[in-house]
Parts: sequence; structure tokens; C-alpha cells
Amino acid sequence: MIRVFKIGGNVIDDPIALDAFLKEFAQVCGRKILVHGGGKEASRLSRQLGIEPRMIDGRRVTDRETLGVVTMVYAGLVNKRIVAGLQALGCDAVGLTGADGNAICATKRPSVPVDFGFVGDISPEGVNEVYINELLEGSRVPIFCAIMHDGQGTLLNCNADSVAAAVAMAMSNLRPTELVYCFEKEGVLRDVDNPASVIELIDSETYEELRGDGSISAGMIPKIDNAFKAISGGVASVTIRKSENILTPGGTCIRK
Amino acid sequence: MIRVFKIGGNVIDDPIALDAFLKEFAQVCGRKILVHGGGKEASRLSRQLGIEPRMIDGRRVTDRETLGVVTMVYAGLVNKRIVAGLQALGCDAVGLTGADGNAICATKRPSVPVDFGFVGDISPEGVNEVYINELLEGSRVPIFCAIMHDGQGTLLNCNADSVAAAVAMAMSNLRPTELVYCFEKEGVLRDVDNPASVIELIDSETYEELRGDGSISAGMIPKIDNAFKAISGGVASVTIRKSENILTPGGTCIRK
Repeated sequence: MIRVFKIGGNVIDDPIALDAFLKEFAQVCGRKILVHGGGKEASRLSRQLGIEPRMIDGRRVTDRETLGVVTMVYAGLVNKRIVAGLQALGCDAVGLTGADGNAICATKRPSVPVDFGFVGDISPEGVNEVYINELLEGSRVPIFCAIMHDGQGTLLNCNADSVAAAVAMAMSNLRPTELVYCFEKEGVLRDVDNPASVIELIDSETYEELRGDGSISAGMIPKIDNAFKAISGGVASVTIRKSENILTPGGTCIRK
Repeated sequence: MIRVFKIGGNVIDDPIALDAFLKEFAQVCGRKILVHGGGKEASRLSRQLGIEPRMIDGRRVTDRETLGVVTMVYAGLVNKRIVAGLQALGCDAVGLTGADGNAICATKRPSVPVDFGFVGDISPEGVNEVYINELLEGSRVPIFCAIMHDGQGTLLNCNADSVAAAVAMAMSNLRPTELVYCFEKEGVLRDVDNPASVIELIDSETYEELRGDGSISAGMIPKIDNAFKAISGGVASVTIRKSENILTPGGTCIRK
């Protein structure tokens, strides 16, 4: 069994939440991988350097200067802070971009209809599961930021949710793999204002129903679609849950 | 045989020199490791963020904000640019800080007589030669920046020359290891203005003579002292040479 965890910006931006997550992640038994997003630090640094961040559909437009900023923040500051923190907890973390060990190759997104600049899309075929497996077999814990490369010397800014899904799909070729999306809520909620309204299990049948009767908020739909994509790609299960208490059962489990 | 190369800021700051070095480094046969310094990018970014860089005896005073800057620049921007560039050249580079895989532990420098802040000193005992050797045995090429950790969750800014020497000394426990300091000059010169005046071999006897008759400029003395320290620590040879044409013999060889 391999477990791929993903944490997003809301966890990274909150030192208490990040510490709590890392303490528990360090205790997760067996083969595990962490993929982390970026948080607000990149936008903050951009502005300090006089580059106004530009987002289209929630994706950062990444010109050459912005690529420098996200590489510094995600691959440098955030990744190494996580790695050093995990090492202090006795977890043998190794921080990686896609370029390191040619772990993950991405493809630069075409410049039409929208030119996102140095933004990449990844597929499970781009994941070097042999190298990642070598790390796991050596009891090491790969910690990926979402900076990938194109294999031609160019770094590309990718979406951390998609990186986690592609890694989980590729690792499924070798072993049963679970994907755990951690965020600030308890799971997929029937009522966004009620943390107790977690939907425990969603399969393709119940998903139809929940979408049909409007029980799932619009914002969750891309995340769940992504989860079903991972499951179609061979991932054993996907869980969407809070970044705390990851050692106990909980959250929303997505199954075929 | 293992070869540890070190490039400094003058190579990193010059894209043409860096490209030339990486093209040749990619072609070096056998087990190899690269340690890189930082260059002027960190000072430039510091100033853009309103932090005036402070140097004492050529060492950067590293307060918490400056630690963030050097981590972003060295472990993020510079390291990943080198790794992606080498991957494009078919060299299976893996970028590392000391925290990754607990590769190198450093000790925070005491705050007296001078408080350098988050600056670390390293010794060969802090080097995890088992992990580095695993990478080499897997035909991977470790690319170290000079950001280390203390094992307690704190990153430390170290001197790249010292990192290279400590790595070479530690790897000498496993295999004969050579250390190659690459810089902008042809080697140790009798006449700093004459690139043809390279001293081909320095051993402890000739070193005495050269220092005695003033043939070596004062600036070279710490570098050569460092080289002799590496040799005393078991390194087979140390070469000080230009960062170009590293595939052909040249430069100044330091032997016992």
C-alpha cells in the first residue's frame, strides 16, 4: 500500500495547522508521499518585487519572472521548511521538484486559448514511478512541490491537486495506492456551514444523486471530478478530509 | 573513484560560463557530485525586499529573513535551474539541501565572538555518506546547495567550499575521492595577471616555499589551506582550476 497525501495553501499558510499536519504525517506507517501546494507566500513575494500576480480561473499566469518567484517559494522556502520539519520528527523526507531525478515530466500548456506562460500539465505517463519507488523502498518519504520540468531544461508551474492525482495513478501500477486530499474542512459537506454534515462515502451512483439534488456545492465538483479521474486511473480510493487527525478514520471517501 | 566538483558565485552569475560548465560536467564519467555556491542573486533579492546584506569576513550574516532569502535563491532558483539544465543534458541530477534525506547535518555557529545568525559549520561526521552513496550507486548525480540543517528543524546557511571539502572527506571513507574547486581563473597563479603562470603541483613542501617567497597571493591562502585540510582528511587529490575545459587536464593539483 502507498499513500499519497496532498496539502494545499490553506494548510501551508497556517503555521499551527501545518505543524499539526506534519506531526501526524510523520507518524503515518508505511510507504507515503506528500505533495504540497504553494500558499499565499508566492503572491506576497511577487508583489514585493513589483510583479502583480495574475490569475485566470484560479491558475497563476506564470511569466519568466513569476516562474522564478514560484520556484523560489515552492521548491525553496516551502519545500525545505517541510523537509527540515519532518526530519526533526524522525521522518526521512526528501524534497523534490519534477526535475530532481527526472521524477515528473510535464508538458507546457499550449498558449491558445489562454497563454498561461510557464504552466505545465502532467499525466501519469510523465511520472517516473521507478525512481519514486526506489525512494519508498529505501524508507524515504518523497515531498513534492508542484514545480515540474519539461525534460528540455525548462521548469513548469503545475497544479498540486493534479500532481498528486498523477503520482497516485502512476504508483498504482506498482502497488495499491490511496490518495488523500487534505484541506481545511472535515470533508465533502452536505451543508457547507455544518462540519458535522460530512458525506462519508461517494460512489458514481451517489455522486449522480448528490449533484442532481444540489447537495454538493459547486466548488467541490472539480475536486470530486478529479478524484473520480484518479479512481478511473487505478487509484484504490480517494479521501477528501481535514488536514488534522489524519491518523483516524474520517472525511469523505470516494470509490468507484 | 568519486569526483566532487564545486562551483562558486562567479560561475553561477555568468549564464555563459554556467552553461559551459554544465555541458562538460554532464560528460564527466563515473560517480560525481556537484556543490554550488550562491552568487549575487541572494544579495540582489535581499535588497529588493529592503534587507541590506551584511557581510563579515566574506560570510553573510543570516538573520531569519535572510535565511528565507538564501533558502529561496540557493535551494530554489539556483539549484533547480542547475538540476533542470543537467537533466536536459541527459545527466540524472538530484538537487539537495542537507535536510533532504538528512544528507548533511551542520552545527549552528556559536553567537560569540560574532553572531552570524543562521550560519552553520559542517564536519565530515555530519555527512550521511550512506545516503549519498546510494544515489551514486543508482547512477544519480547529487547537486548540493550550501543550505544544511541542524536535524532539529532549522536550516543553516553554510560555506560551499567547506561543504564540498566535508563531502569529499566523508566519501573518501567509501572510495578514493577527488575534489575539484572550479573558479574563474586557470588555477593558482604565480602572477595573478598572467593566466599562463599556473603552478601545476603544490605539495606541503612546495607550499612552504611558495608562501615563503610570496609567490602565492594572500587571497589564495585560505583556499589552499582548505585543500590541504581535505587531503589530511583522506581526499586523494584536490585541484583548483577554471570552470571550463574540466574534461582535460589542467589547473593546480594539491597533493600531500
